[in-house]
Amino acid sequence: MASLRIREAKEGDCADILRLVRELAEYEKLSDQVTISEEALRADGFGENPFYHCLVAEILPAPGELQGQGIGSEIIKKVAEVALDKGCSQFRLAVLDWNKKAMDLYKALGAQDLTEAEGWHSFRFEGKAMREMAGR
Amino acid sequence: MASLRIREAKEGDCADILRLVRELAEYEKLSDQVTISEEALRADGFGENPFYHCLVAEILPAPGELQGQGIGSEIIKKVAEVALDKGCSQFRLAVLDWNKKAMDLYKALGAQDLTEAEGWHSFRFEGKAMREMAGR
Repeated sequence: MASLRIREAKEGDCADILRLVRELAEYEKLSDQVTISEEALRADGFGENPFYHCLVAEILPAPGELQGQGIGSEIIKKVAEVALDKGCSQFRLAVLDWNKKAMDLYKALGAQDLTEAEGWHSFRFEGKAMREMAGR
Repeated sequence: MASLRIREAKEGDCADILRLVRELAEYEKLSDQVTISEEALRADGFGENPFYHCLVAEILPAPGELQGQGIGSEIIKKVAEVALDKGCSQFRLAVLDWNKKAMDLYKALGAQDLTEAEGWHSFRFEGKAMREMAGR
């Protein structure tokens, strides 16, 4: 059986985090949206008042074993623990409608698809719109 | 013309913030989802490492004038300014699919509907699912 350890990310993980962000974006066919640099990941996550928190899963697969088996659930379970410890009453994930594997996993773990159930849409304002609104 | 001033929220605004949260939820037909207390709003927003930041619009309407006119855009413009000052490259809003007035406003200000354009769905894990995953 694979050995799995989930821990808080350290600043030194940022190169690996960026690599994984890029791999995920490639899978999502959204690589052109990854504009963040390793430097920005360091500054945003490991400063005084961090913009994000990150968990890292360290895996040592057993010989012949598929990587990735069950790691998604373990990470989400860890997020639930951290969220409860911090006093959160809920947490949310964004998922693409064709990513059935992820949707099925989240539903199996007890999540509700708010877009389907209540009609929530996500709107994004990007740099150009932000600068126009701010008159910059 | 109405006089409008947008400022950062203070801890003493929490009773009014909760009232506005409840009024919004009533409009969204989601009142049963408002479980937060004024005490939690104070703790979450005005502690050491706040969970949220909040802007407040103070309005003094001119005689005979409708309240609400253009205030939504002014607040979103202010959010854009704050986000740019903090080094954010984008920001997102969640909106219900039947709230055409809000959707039209966001689009007019330059936002993109990510759910429509790319298929993003929002998944929510609530307390029960969180506790089951954490084994609590």
